[in-house]
Amino acid sequence: MTSIKKSFLRALAGEVVDPPPVWLMRQAGRHLSEYKELRATTKSFLDFCYSPEKAIEATLQPVRRYAMDAAILFSDILVIPDALGMDVTFVPGVGPKLKPLEPGDPAPVFDAEKFHHHLDPVYQAVNGLSAKLDDTVTLIGFAGAPWTVATYMVEGGGSKEYQKTRTWAYAEPDSFQALIDVLVAATSSYLIRQIDNGAEVVQLFDSWAGILPPNQFARWTTAPIKAITKAVKAAHPNTPVIGFPRGAGLLYKSFVEETGVDGVSLDATVPLDWAAREIQPLCTVQGNLDNLALLTGGQTMDDEIRRVLDAFKNGPFIFNLGHGVLPETPVAHVERLVALVRGEK
Amino acid sequence: MTSIKKSFLRALAGEVVDPPPVWLMRQAGRHLSEYKELRATTKSFLDFCYSPEKAIEATLQPVRRYAMDAAILFSDILVIPDALGMDVTFVPGVGPKLKPLEPGDPAPVFDAEKFHHHLDPVYQAVNGLSAKLDDTVTLIGFAGAPWTVATYMVEGGGSKEYQKTRTWAYAEPDSFQALIDVLVAATSSYLIRQIDNGAEVVQLFDSWAGILPPNQFARWTTAPIKAITKAVKAAHPNTPVIGFPRGAGLLYKSFVEETGVDGVSLDATVPLDWAAREIQPLCTVQGNLDNLALLTGGQTMDDEIRRVLDAFKNGPFIFNLGHGVLPETPVAHVERLVALVRGEK
Repeated sequence: MTSIKKSFLRALAGEVVDPPPVWLMRQAGRHLSEYKELRATTKSFLDFCYSPEKAIEATLQPVRRYAMDAAILFSDILVIPDALGMDVTFVPGVGPKLKPLEPGDPAPVFDAEKFHHHLDPVYQAVNGLSAKLDDTVTLIGFAGAPWTVATYMVEGGGSKEYQKTRTWAYAEPDSFQALIDVLVAATSSYLIRQIDNGAEVVQLFDSWAGILPPNQFARWTTAPIKAITKAVKAAHPNTPVIGFPRGAGLLYKSFVEETGVDGVSLDATVPLDWAAREIQPLCTVQGNLDNLALLTGGQTMDDEIRRVLDAFKNGPFIFNLGHGVLPETPVAHVERLVALVRGEK
Repeated sequence: MTSIKKSFLRALAGEVVDPPPVWLMRQAGRHLSEYKELRATTKSFLDFCYSPEKAIEATLQPVRRYAMDAAILFSDILVIPDALGMDVTFVPGVGPKLKPLEPGDPAPVFDAEKFHHHLDPVYQAVNGLSAKLDDTVTLIGFAGAPWTVATYMVEGGGSKEYQKTRTWAYAEPDSFQALIDVLVAATSSYLIRQIDNGAEVVQLFDSWAGILPPNQFARWTTAPIKAITKAVKAAHPNTPVIGFPRGAGLLYKSFVEETGVDGVSLDATVPLDWAAREIQPLCTVQGNLDNLALLTGGQTMDDEIRRVLDAFKNGPFIFNLGHGVLPETPVAHVERLVALVRGEK
């Protein structure tokens, strides 16, 4: 037994916590009416993220409503290219738009002073949250992982096949590596600054890791996250790092072994028995209820929640989804989820 | 050694063939200028598929150009909903459009006579191909697997999250099962008729299997493909069946064990060493060069081809991609691929 008070941090330190701590990816945001009201007060999505008061309030809304064990900073993974001068905009109904990099283009320059000045409102939000949160709730900072962020920078927005990014990575790996290296440096520095300001855990989201074949995954997902984890630990040895290489399948195992993360977030396609046997002995697992089971609710959801709880009960575990809460998800389903995880029948 | 002459069929019968047989998913179609010329002669894509002469010519073009070991019928997975009366159209630049089923809707009725009458031009094409192909080239028939075809029928076209289909499957599994059952019956009957007309192998494409969590995968991908394989084998015990549950990851193994397929097509995210160790002892493997390595060409492509060849050389193996040939792929890259597989330095 450790002397740490917060159940979330105890689970990340390797303790079997009963009931397990619970939070949900995208617990803040569009499924909450109070968020939609708050969001309507600012036109641009990034301006909203860069307003410390609004980001704080959006972060706290689900914690207040559901008594979650963790609060995750309300922000977006594309603040990093934005702070690198790439001028990101969010087009309503379409998604993010950037002026894309072309294969072989030099990477944006990481000017630490300009970068951190641009992101100062984020650090203010983290700082404010750190002061406001109840002493049982853990504050999670986060960033997009280099591979996923690079896909947006190269495709100029979302994509289905990532053809341009993937072809660049194959055809000119040196110049693509230079882009990834800038993102490793910027992301490490960004996460360290979040921790300086009160983040207690950081999570790296590699949402598009699952499209990469194994040798590409090793180079563009595992190696950059390993480098960031090392840099974060050099500055803050006691701050846990969670990795989320979504869709990694079999490669979750080498990812955990090689990056040295303290926890790994598993998507809903990962078989429970395999993860309990192969991954949970290596680090804390987080996940992995299907977000469509949460959307569906009813007996289906109850059954799926119980299967996840049962599979991971004998090792270090944080209850979460395999992907983010969908906008159409009823609040009552999330309430039921939290109650079930906490032992209600 | 068997007495079968065609190297493709020998590999599917479990023989280690050197050099391995080679063909590529989407080897016919948009990367070939002769296809684009032929395609321009018919406005509607489905009308093109339903023209036996044109479907035959599109099927033969890549076989002629590259001397592939197999020809795959030129058609589309959505001819099944079209033949079930769902009135599929292909909108240029957008993709397929169908009037979508709503959750709980009764499944379309499988009227065998109407269905086969609608698909008669496809059977004519198979028959014509069977007569025309050189006696070293194997003719592959195919169909979309029920899960993947159902997503198009429910979403009304392509989709990113498959939210409507997945929620239906969770919330009303009985009515969704009824839809899958109709697709199992129609698909089995369709493939049997292709074999009656000369197809020597059939492949089932479950392109969106990879989004399903394990218990959903077992019910909506593995079980329907098992049922179709059984029905095909009951009518044609000696015709090999290849399954392609794209993105199945760890679940490829249980898929092969449970369906009884003779071969499995592996996507490019499957680790070579794992597949050689865990899958190749169970059945013939087909794959799995990254289609973006083929698009890239050069030393990258050569290296990746050699890695695949080396990994699978000690067991039954058919060289292929992990996904279809991309429209921008240069013909010279495909020529180089075939030469390398056949032992050119």
